Amino acid sequence: MDPKDATQSASCSTVCVNNPHLDAMKDDILYHFSLGTRTHDLPNMFGDVKFVCVGGSPWRMKSFNEYIAAELNMEDPKSEYPNICAGTDRFAMYKTGPVLSVSHGMGVPSIAIMLHELIKLLHHARCTDVTIIRIGTSGGIGLEPGTVVITKQSVDATFLPKFEQVILGKTVVHNTDLDQSLAEELLQCSKELNQFETVIGNTMCTLDFYEGQARLDGAFCSYTEKDKQDYLNKANKAGVCNIEMESAVLAAMCKLSGLRAAVVCVTLLDRLKGDQLSSSHEVLQNYQQRPQILVGSYIKKQLRARAGRS
Amino acid sequence: MDPKDATQSASCSTVCVNNPHLDAMKDDILYHFSLGTRTHDLPNMFGDVKFVCVGGSPWRMKSFNEYIAAELNMEDPKSEYPNICAGTDRFAMYKTGPVLSVSHGMGVPSIAIMLHELIKLLHHARCTDVTIIRIGTSGGIGLEPGTVVITKQSVDATFLPKFEQVILGKTVVHNTDLDQSLAEELLQCSKELNQFETVIGNTMCTLDFYEGQARLDGAFCSYTEKDKQDYLNKANKAGVCNIEMESAVLAAMCKLSGLRAAVVCVTLLDRLKGDQLSSSHEVLQNYQQRPQILVGSYIKKQLRARAGRS
Repeated sequence: MDPKDATQSASCSTVCVNNPHLDAMKDDILYHFSLGTRTHDLPNMFGDVKFVCVGGSPWRMKSFNEYIAAELNMEDPKSEYPNICAGTDRFAMYKTGPVLSVSHGMGVPSIAIMLHELIKLLHHARCTDVTIIRIGTSGGIGLEPGTVVITKQSVDATFLPKFEQVILGKTVVHNTDLDQSLAEELLQCSKELNQFETVIGNTMCTLDFYEGQARLDGAFCSYTEKDKQDYLNKANKAGVCNIEMESAVLAAMCKLSGLRAAVVCVTLLDRLKGDQLSSSHEVLQNYQQRPQILVGSYIKKQLRARAGRS
Repeated sequence: MDPKDATQSASCSTVCVNNPHLDAMKDDILYHFSLGTRTHDLPNMFGDVKFVCVGGSPWRMKSFNEYIAAELNMEDPKSEYPNICAGTDRFAMYKTGPVLSVSHGMGVPSIAIMLHELIKLLHHARCTDVTIIRIGTSGGIGLEPGTVVITKQSVDATFLPKFEQVILGKTVVHNTDLDQSLAEELLQCSKELNQFETVIGNTMCTLDFYEGQARLDGAFCSYTEKDKQDYLNKANKAGVCNIEMESAVLAAMCKLSGLRAAVVCVTLLDRLKGDQLSSSHEVLQNYQQRPQILVGSYIKKQLRARAGRS
């Protein structure tokens, strides 16, 4: 191998921070994780991480950590699985072997804070070959509730695959493509599982849950039922399978840092038929486990394949 | 009094939902609170609420609830102050007499979900004369850390007092003025307390904590230290005293629903001098209590004045 190729390949597999100022900092405080380079031995704590699973709810990420520990036969019956971010209530973080589970709250700004600090954490910990997967919930469009959607592209409220960010008062536009081979591998995994319907499609990412997603049941609504249906039908025709609130910035930031990324969300309802989450607690709980089951199975398969190669 | 005036006055003091579709709903599920009109007697649970205090962190809102209970001599030494939203981990909610304390997570989308459901809750509970105050943390510009800022106007990243929302793919612009008399009353209250510096000024509301606030310490940074200083100095000249991530949508939504609203944030650092929150835990804890102390004192004074009048 040409030495230049080796360098490129090595630099590709690490987690890129694109910030020349970081090197000059003596200490880096990851404030919203309550972690830092001076106070914590990040390479020792996180150096072996290969998969990061993220989701809005701290309870769901705790439960995913317990699920993956059992799947990988790494559960410790005596352990309570400590929350690594116990010093703060902004995010929750759990770890089992090479799998890190982190909550990100609701909406683009919340997950962006988490991702900035997660990317720095993976960089400081000198992690390599990291895959990040969001396991979330969403509203479906024209799909049976409970269907799992693997995102092809994250699109905005005008159905365009872009994420706009304001830096120093100026708008910067980012691409929101996700890793297509990872999406295909996840779809294949779901076919093998054969437990629930899974599709690959576009995901609309909005900044608001009510009017931003054409709901009729918010505190305010300035449009008619027909306006709503027209908009959602237009989205459907543009290839939008589901709507959630975090995929755009996850796609953009993971692309910028060279992380393989996927978004796997279950649809809790069909938005063409309603707005309220009126299914029973048990049904919604069952749906919410589907992305966990799929991603758990994928991680297990990947780790087995790697163990077989080594 | 002219009967027309009486009607206007009564309708002004209730909480307005501007949504003709709500009346047609048999049941309204406030999903992210795990509450609903069919499952909960909202007028009985919340009908007496006069003040709603909101803040990002669930721990802080729990602690504020305990603080206000002690201030109002309404503490119950036997009670654990149950989290009213215990059925979900999206938001936390506590109540002491006429004061409701609710967490809202980080960023505009997260607080917007909370506010949609809070405004519907107050409407369903037939609450009247409600004041809502955000007690938060922020980065200051040119102020001594620990200074409390009462927001005059919430401005965007170009220093304009507006909030842009996308509805059915189209941008709608809202005004972000806050209640000036409430701001003045809070400032007066802080003068009487005489415990810490408090100012009235503009607050910049951003969608990102790192590049969106001109920080040099995120995972990515595409500008120089000089670019950062120039931008923050421009903000300073435009009257921006502090930067946070929720005030714009709070101002816009409270205005639309006829709620008196204020934003009271402490500055944890001076952004002209740095980016990282490197003060000790104790110092930051002390700063974070300041908005609580000020708002607690204000509520106590208001309730005394009302009791005196009745």
